[in-house]
Amino acid sequence: MMPLTLSSPSLIRLVLLTSRYSHTPFLRNFNSLPLINRKLPYKPPFGVRCHASSSSSSSFTAKSSKEIRKAQTKVVVDEKLTSIRRLFSDPGVGIDAYIIPSQDAHQSEFIAECYARRAYLSGFTGSAGTAIVTKDKAALWTDGRYFLQAEKQLNSSWSLMRAGNPGVPTASEWVADVLAPGGRVGIDPFLFSADAAEELKKVISKKNHELVYLYNVNLVDEIWKDSRPKPPSKQIRIHDLKYAGVDVASKLLTLRNQIMDAGASAIVISMLDEIAWVLNLRGSDVPHSPVMYAYLIVEIDQAHLFIDNSKVTAEVKDHLKNAGIELRPYDSILQEIDSLAARGAQLLMDPSSLNVAIISTYKSACERYSRNSESEERAKPKFTDSSSGYIANPSGIYMQSPISWAKAIKNDAELQGMKNSHLRLLEFRSLQDGFMDTSFDTISGSGGNGAIIHYKPELKSCSRVDPKKLFLLDSGAQYVDGTTDITRTVHFSEPSAREKECFTRVLQGHIALDQAVFPEGTPGFVLDGFARSSLWKIGLDYRHGTGHGVGAALNVHEGPQSISFRYGNMTPLQNGMIVSNEPGYYEDHAFGIRIENLLHVRDAETPNRFGGVTYLGFEKLTFFPIQTKMVDVSLLSDTEIDWLNSYHAEVWEKVSPLLEGSTTQQWLWNNTRPLAKS
Amino acid sequence: MMPLTLSSPSLIRLVLLTSRYSHTPFLRNFNSLPLINRKLPYKPPFGVRCHASSSSSSSFTAKSSKEIRKAQTKVVVDEKLTSIRRLFSDPGVGIDAYIIPSQDAHQSEFIAECYARRAYLSGFTGSAGTAIVTKDKAALWTDGRYFLQAEKQLNSSWSLMRAGNPGVPTASEWVADVLAPGGRVGIDPFLFSADAAEELKKVISKKNHELVYLYNVNLVDEIWKDSRPKPPSKQIRIHDLKYAGVDVASKLLTLRNQIMDAGASAIVISMLDEIAWVLNLRGSDVPHSPVMYAYLIVEIDQAHLFIDNSKVTAEVKDHLKNAGIELRPYDSILQEIDSLAARGAQLLMDPSSLNVAIISTYKSACERYSRNSESEERAKPKFTDSSSGYIANPSGIYMQSPISWAKAIKNDAELQGMKNSHLRLLEFRSLQDGFMDTSFDTISGSGGNGAIIHYKPELKSCSRVDPKKLFLLDSGAQYVDGTTDITRTVHFSEPSAREKECFTRVLQGHIALDQAVFPEGTPGFVLDGFARSSLWKIGLDYRHGTGHGVGAALNVHEGPQSISFRYGNMTPLQNGMIVSNEPGYYEDHAFGIRIENLLHVRDAETPNRFGGVTYLGFEKLTFFPIQTKMVDVSLLSDTEIDWLNSYHAEVWEKVSPLLEGSTTQQWLWNNTRPLAKS
Repeated sequence: MMPLTLSSPSLIRLVLLTSRYSHTPFLRNFNSLPLINRKLPYKPPFGVRCHASSSSSSSFTAKSSKEIRKAQTKVVVDEKLTSIRRLFSDPGVGIDAYIIPSQDAHQSEFIAECYARRAYLSGFTGSAGTAIVTKDKAALWTDGRYFLQAEKQLNSSWSLMRAGNPGVPTASEWVADVLAPGGRVGIDPFLFSADAAEELKKVISKKNHELVYLYNVNLVDEIWKDSRPKPPSKQIRIHDLKYAGVDVASKLLTLRNQIMDAGASAIVISMLDEIAWVLNLRGSDVPHSPVMYAYLIVEIDQAHLFIDNSKVTAEVKDHLKNAGIELRPYDSILQEIDSLAARGAQLLMDPSSLNVAIISTYKSACERYSRNSESEERAKPKFTDSSSGYIANPSGIYMQSPISWAKAIKNDAELQGMKNSHLRLLEFRSLQDGFMDTSFDTISGSGGNGAIIHYKPELKSCSRVDPKKLFLLDSGAQYVDGTTDITRTVHFSEPSAREKECFTRVLQGHIALDQAVFPEGTPGFVLDGFARSSLWKIGLDYRHGTGHGVGAALNVHEGPQSISFRYGNMTPLQNGMIVSNEPGYYEDHAFGIRIENLLHVRDAETPNRFGGVTYLGFEKLTFFPIQTKMVDVSLLSDTEIDWLNSYHAEVWEKVSPLLEGSTTQQWLWNNTRPLAKS
Repeated sequence: MMPLTLSSPSLIRLVLLTSRYSHTPFLRNFNSLPLINRKLPYKPPFGVRCHASSSSSSSFTAKSSKEIRKAQTKVVVDEKLTSIRRLFSDPGVGIDAYIIPSQDAHQSEFIAECYARRAYLSGFTGSAGTAIVTKDKAALWTDGRYFLQAEKQLNSSWSLMRAGNPGVPTASEWVADVLAPGGRVGIDPFLFSADAAEELKKVISKKNHELVYLYNVNLVDEIWKDSRPKPPSKQIRIHDLKYAGVDVASKLLTLRNQIMDAGASAIVISMLDEIAWVLNLRGSDVPHSPVMYAYLIVEIDQAHLFIDNSKVTAEVKDHLKNAGIELRPYDSILQEIDSLAARGAQLLMDPSSLNVAIISTYKSACERYSRNSESEERAKPKFTDSSSGYIANPSGIYMQSPISWAKAIKNDAELQGMKNSHLRLLEFRSLQDGFMDTSFDTISGSGGNGAIIHYKPELKSCSRVDPKKLFLLDSGAQYVDGTTDITRTVHFSEPSAREKECFTRVLQGHIALDQAVFPEGTPGFVLDGFARSSLWKIGLDYRHGTGHGVGAALNVHEGPQSISFRYGNMTPLQNGMIVSNEPGYYEDHAFGIRIENLLHVRDAETPNRFGGVTYLGFEKLTFFPIQTKMVDVSLLSDTEIDWLNSYHAEVWEKVSPLLEGSTTQQWLWNNTRPLAKS
């Protein structure tokens, strides 16, 4: 654990001087709803006996932050809220409530500062949250990872809604309830996926409210004005074929076959990592994810990239031209959608990721043009218009993006890059070849701050690392060839029996998942309980998923797979996927524990293959010691001790040659010694 | 294992002289579709790489039984098929295909012989299966539990469709494909739940076929004629309040509150166990389940039981009269539904269990009467018709039956009965107080027959129990106070290393589930993998769920909960539920292993209650030795050995006092000795 001591200057820099957004594991994979309609993960069906929450844990009650801080004297007059409410009655607006999600127009996890509207308006900087402002109320929803942080950051004009706690309504339900019947609920249609908008509309229409798409104005931007950061403009770069493994032409060929198989004539892609992956390009528009703001439309015989031209170097222009891709202005996307509808293009679109501005524009354009064509050409035969090759009355083909799958299953070059990048040790990151960025804000928490699941230290409020308390460090890096994500929890002096018991049970969960073997076709959620089982036995749990997908030199969180208690994601784990294995335990105001490795899903060599299917297992990508001082050996089975000892042997074997001649090698030796069985 | 030796006459009777239906675990809980639309349990979403089945296991291929028996010389002319096809063109029929499911009109698991139409027509007697006859084809779908049995029982006119195997179409897909467009697919609407009929209609209408409800004739009954058994007519009895725990008046009061809460004016119940449970009655109409054929309609101020009058004794008549329940003829159910619609009754109905004859009759009646009332009373105010208390234009409220939940969560009297009934040992059943029936056909298989998951020995074809082979015995009993279900697998001489390894891994799965602790709200499927994990590690698995609900002196399989790899059932396990714990492993043509106890779901006493929720665990109801000779101790952890030893200590403690003075007590002593740790 030497690299993590306070004497390491590079560590302190990592801990303290990081940018503003923390990471959002697991959310996108649950579904695309931005905390608008998300219910309890364990939603009992009707008629279940209601177990009233006899909670003794303060973070599990539904108190608003107002109530919690009744004792506080200052009542804040929130000028941003006053200003935004003034806009509600503007001409062309006319709304009774405005919903501000965390998202940008691309459902990105990390967003450019100019799009951080919810954070600007509410002051809450966690990655997941939805704000709603009505004429007399302001409320913010976030999930268990951020309850403590939101309590600290929201002022008293805001009510904190602890999503998932018993009795807390969803944002949609709440807005439907607080408005008088016939209310108009405004949103920026670029910031909601079509699915999320549809769900929202369903809920509020039950109470006779109307959902209003404000295409031409974002109310937060209006009040943000000059202080709003400029859109990012850094140049994009080519992702070398030796790391990408497959060239753009081959990826487009596969994609075009999938478009045709689906009966479509083109695909619209808005997920920034999908665009970067298909085009073998990388960007620097958002923190931590090497992507650039763009839309991509691929037709069978042409393709267009909608992007700010100033980011595109001559070299990248050539690269795109060679692949037959033309450039268009980023802002012209809706015009192009309209013109595709006019040409009868049947668009393949993923309503869970594409924003409702695009899908709604396409649908109305299709209706408009089909009405025209029907009235004009009633005598002509329907279906195929041979001049464009497109059908006369398209209505869209809605399905999961085929790129999401293709990208999740890594090819050999990508896997090799992921393996290589994981052997570069934490503290040497910035000195090493290929280091580009951290893959998310480093999360480091000492003592009670460790219990804030995504705690990010601020210069003003952070604690000093207390050597008497548990220290949690969750850190990742972007290299040219791969993306890393690791968490370790260490103690610099003597851990308590309680800390050791909790750590050991988290470790048992980590080992159970690491060692799991399962038949092909198994969705990740089937394995989630393996990682919780040991904690559950003493009535403990953690409020986040156990594993997320990881991109190859791309997003640190990617779908479509996940390992989570959110059981809706039926995506089977597949040979070639990467997932994190990160069970944890968080004791409010006391300590936080998480142990995270990245794993490569691969065929397991089982002596039998019942049912003729392949069985899968995991290969570790992460090699870094787990602090044995934290382990209560008496809780471990012999098999678990064997696992830990052989992991440490492997860490020494793989990492020590890279540390030849460094004092860190001695540290590594000390920290990879086997535990004796009790 | 002494009670299971060949020298026990009572055992031989149990094994050989049982009736025709075997049991169907888990099917109803998956969904209500009678193998019509059920897909692979692990259905990969679109775009998943296809892992071609390079199977070496014969039972995992899609060969028809025709192909498998090509070598056989006799070609059978199937006269039943000839006769039924002749009826296709009868007036009022006019169909191109006829689907014959396993079900009776109540979605019962065990059915009266007169309703066993699929078995009569096809010869296949397994509990789960769907037959389809077209003008030139006959095919039968069944699942993995019955592949071997169906191969033996179907003649060469039939194709066996192995549901769930790669490449095997569902029954709906198949019939949609084999008919020329515009085909008419006939069904008996009493034998399909509304959900199943809806699904079927959806699939076949894609290929432009029509679903035809033949209300007035069942084609199998037509050809069955005089040889068809008479409907059951045994008298029903009162289920004593000391076992039921709650009287009928209280149950009806709760039910009526639920009806009103749902905004309905009446509920229609067709599930036979729900009717028996609500009315504290028991019957003998079907094998193994103590129920009687009936429908029940409960309105707010009245209730009607539709039943064959001859089964109702004077005592039962009084019991029903006291609860305000009037009798109606069983066959008058559709008239009553029609008249309820006429009166504007808003019916609460569960479309997963109610047959489409009832729901379809109600819907058309509602439409018919609402058209009439609209034209006649255009001037009058809508909604409430004050004379009947019912609404003018009802359309039905479709939701899960509230009784299914109420019944699943056992009260103290029911739990006590379940516990008491489990202390009555296997071979003494028929001698003991309160024994009523077996709760399902005893499944006993020696050697290769053990691999037939629901093998039921027939006098002509059964093997002798071979002392050199593994012997599996799955047996249950109906007592006045409870229902039992237990499986043990034993070897009478020396098991092979392979048998021991497989047995030990099944046992590890059994222990893992037995010991699981989990937060309230957890659906059963989350725990299913716990029971498979040890088998998966060497590439083994089993093709059935791990646990099913069990009724209290009622059906041996009941919902709504289940512990299965069929992930659709989100029902959380609840304090008071009963589930079986029965992992297994089946090696085709070699041996079968299953270890089954019943478990009572109950609050666990955990030292923490993270999130303020209750944690749940299991209490065992079954106390019978597990053969330690079968255990490979080197595979077990110390914790697992402790589990087995303390279970055996408990078996001895609870059961030995009941065996005082019997030689069986010595056998029990010998079979409950602790294992030494290796």
